Amino acid sequence: MSITKPSLPKGTRDFSPQEMVKRNYIFDTIKTVFKKYGYAEIQTPSMENLQTLTGKYGDEGDKLIFKILNSGEFLNDPKKKSFNFAQDDNSNRLVSLISEKALRYDLTVPFARYVVMHQSEISFPFKRFQVQPVWRADRPQKGRYREFYQCDADVVGSPSLLNEAEFILIYHEALSNLGLKDFNIKINNRKILSGIAEIIGKPELIVDMTVAIDKLDKIGFEGVTKELLERGFSNADIDKLKPVILLQGTNEEKLASLKSVLANSETGLKGTEEIETVFDYVSKLTTHNSQLATTIELDITLARGLNYYTGCIFEVKTNEVAMGSIGGGGRYDDLTGMFGLKDLTGVGISFGADRIYDVLEELNLFPVSTAQGTKVLISNFDETAELYALPILQQLRTEGIAAELYPSSAKLKKQMSYADGKNIPYVILIGGDEMESGLLTFKNMESGAQEKLNITSIIEKLR
Amino acid sequence: MSITKPSLPKGTRDFSPQEMVKRNYIFDTIKTVFKKYGYAEIQTPSMENLQTLTGKYGDEGDKLIFKILNSGEFLNDPKKKSFNFAQDDNSNRLVSLISEKALRYDLTVPFARYVVMHQSEISFPFKRFQVQPVWRADRPQKGRYREFYQCDADVVGSPSLLNEAEFILIYHEALSNLGLKDFNIKINNRKILSGIAEIIGKPELIVDMTVAIDKLDKIGFEGVTKELLERGFSNADIDKLKPVILLQGTNEEKLASLKSVLANSETGLKGTEEIETVFDYVSKLTTHNSQLATTIELDITLARGLNYYTGCIFEVKTNEVAMGSIGGGGRYDDLTGMFGLKDLTGVGISFGADRIYDVLEELNLFPVSTAQGTKVLISNFDETAELYALPILQQLRTEGIAAELYPSSAKLKKQMSYADGKNIPYVILIGGDEMESGLLTFKNMESGAQEKLNITSIIEKLR
Repeated sequence: MSITKPSLPKGTRDFSPQEMVKRNYIFDTIKTVFKKYGYAEIQTPSMENLQTLTGKYGDEGDKLIFKILNSGEFLNDPKKKSFNFAQDDNSNRLVSLISEKALRYDLTVPFARYVVMHQSEISFPFKRFQVQPVWRADRPQKGRYREFYQCDADVVGSPSLLNEAEFILIYHEALSNLGLKDFNIKINNRKILSGIAEIIGKPELIVDMTVAIDKLDKIGFEGVTKELLERGFSNADIDKLKPVILLQGTNEEKLASLKSVLANSETGLKGTEEIETVFDYVSKLTTHNSQLATTIELDITLARGLNYYTGCIFEVKTNEVAMGSIGGGGRYDDLTGMFGLKDLTGVGISFGADRIYDVLEELNLFPVSTAQGTKVLISNFDETAELYALPILQQLRTEGIAAELYPSSAKLKKQMSYADGKNIPYVILIGGDEMESGLLTFKNMESGAQEKLNITSIIEKLR
Repeated sequence: MSITKPSLPKGTRDFSPQEMVKRNYIFDTIKTVFKKYGYAEIQTPSMENLQTLTGKYGDEGDKLIFKILNSGEFLNDPKKKSFNFAQDDNSNRLVSLISEKALRYDLTVPFARYVVMHQSEISFPFKRFQVQPVWRADRPQKGRYREFYQCDADVVGSPSLLNEAEFILIYHEALSNLGLKDFNIKINNRKILSGIAEIIGKPELIVDMTVAIDKLDKIGFEGVTKELLERGFSNADIDKLKPVILLQGTNEEKLASLKSVLANSETGLKGTEEIETVFDYVSKLTTHNSQLATTIELDITLARGLNYYTGCIFEVKTNEVAMGSIGGGGRYDDLTGMFGLKDLTGVGISFGADRIYDVLEELNLFPVSTAQGTKVLISNFDETAELYALPILQQLRTEGIAAELYPSSAKLKKQMSYADGKNIPYVILIGGDEMESGLLTFKNMESGAQEKLNITSIIEKLR
């Protein structure tokens, strides 16, 4: 066995105990809200058949799928010998010969597969959430990893806009519970975008239009104009677009303007009507929460994943830290069609857990509570003290208190630095005096304060 | 996009909401006990560099590692063109050209890598637990999957046998909390096995000896005798071995016999002494729990992973269901040596979560509680009733009650079967009478009983 200096694959991460406590805090907070709204957890395998994934994410996406090599002596198959490394430059052809499985790229396609395979067991509408890692062979960079968790909730089989409204509430409740105070839940509707392209008379250019106006934030109206001209729009078209793109005011004012602009587009008006229905549901579900209304923002430039979504589109941004979106989602009318189950509508959202982690870290919003870890360490001076400590250790644990006895009679300094390193808030010191009197030295590691207490009083304090 | 009939890779599984609740129940129960004993959670990436894993699991193990194909146009590298499919039969050589990463095969090697890479941040002794999936390209069969969860706790950097004793307590507490009543925690010690081989005068045949006597359960003493003869032992050796292999009586009686047999082996006596110390710690930690002592069984035939373990060895079996071991572990003196960090001793255990799942299912031990899911469904008769229901839905959720409003005015039968399918225990029916009186029909789905209550009383009942 040769000694290898260990390292991690590019773009992957270890999570320390301190990081795990924080990550679990985020996932648990979000999961609790999902459950409160009736979403149930499922899990799918990390591997999917390559044909389940291929062609679902576009050509660029396909390249980023991590393929798994077939196991066994795959070269024994004569077909595979037809491949000549010296002459053939096409790794796709080689891949098809030696790989049949791949790591999941997102949670949406596996979910669609799940729904189709389990349709007979499912009571529709099916409300599921899923928190699992996904893998992408992207170039790693700050904040972008090759393995990262997605945190999704979707409902399939219900066209009701109540679902959209509840997703807004879920975003609001989960992010508020995580301590975020100033964030926007942006909403748009694919039908409004279609309506606008229709009114301009360029319905076929809807993708070009939305790609361009999606950049308003970054390149400003002049930049968008330039791009629209390059993408086949005329100056007259842009004149028509301008008031829509630069729409100002409250959501109600924006809706009023849009309805007048879209007066001749049935699709467009359907879009504004859907948004109005969602707003109406939200306001009826939040009669005591006026703060929520101010976080919702109708944003016509929002277009994420346009080819995918068919109705409402969501995106969430925090205003407290410079950071990309921390969540997004939308309605797709035909999620499972790719696997042969037609006309099943779905709507879903996703939380960007890694970004939320960075936001909470930067705003110092993680709770200081160390409730997750060991609550008290018993020192270990010598064999006699250890012997004395064993039933005390048992008693603490019987009371449900996470407790440790330092496993050897090391120097006190070492034992204290162990407690520090693990963020253990209390230490029980047991020496000769303590064993004689039964009054143990109970030390608060944060304040440094010590007091002499019997074990019953210590247990009371720790509970 | 062609339509593919979806399927799952061999040996992998989807987990439905019902299964997830049960799986989470097992994991949460075990994690709670790990934490109570001072173990902290870490996670490592699903992928490791191939060189981190290769050579750690033996030749057979190496073959079962799932390799990940390098991404990008790897054929452009001229070195790779030297491989000729038509002539070269060695897939290992091909693999080395096109794969650098693999899926983790267990949690132990990644943990060793973690300890070495993070040694400067860790306060030793380092007590960590880890619950993550692993992947093995084994032939799938009943109860054996290609993706399955491991559930491990290990401590490195502490030679104290208190750790071994606490692992026995952890097994006992976790399995008891899961409702198991009749199980055995078997213990052995590698040094006892070494001592026995030494006494017979065949220390070099220790592996052959233990492989043979490990099968006593399955093939009986005659079978073991036959195998020992084949593996180079004489009839005289076997005469010496017989009383040891067939050791009967209480743990104390077995220890007494062993000590007399091993009187001339320093190593062997070290082994019995270690076992005695562990037993001693256990009894001092369980003064009020006499039941625990009866679950511990000194078993000299226990040898699992012999080449790996250097001290105590554990294995857990249930007596209530015919099933292989549901847990195992042991002490290894040099876990991190493979990555260049010498002399760091460790001891760890693992829970077989999939088998425990099957055991609990067979014994009907999963709690009936549906606390994890939606607690109440509000029916949806028509638009007026929906409007009336929205603030009620809000009120329930504000009280922390997981609640849903059926998202459309479907037939009542459909709504009821939705509640049934999701195991929702209560339904609130809202029709004309209810809206007029404010007394809502509150239905217990299990008993079928209905009563008319105002929302305040309903909330009280649900809390």
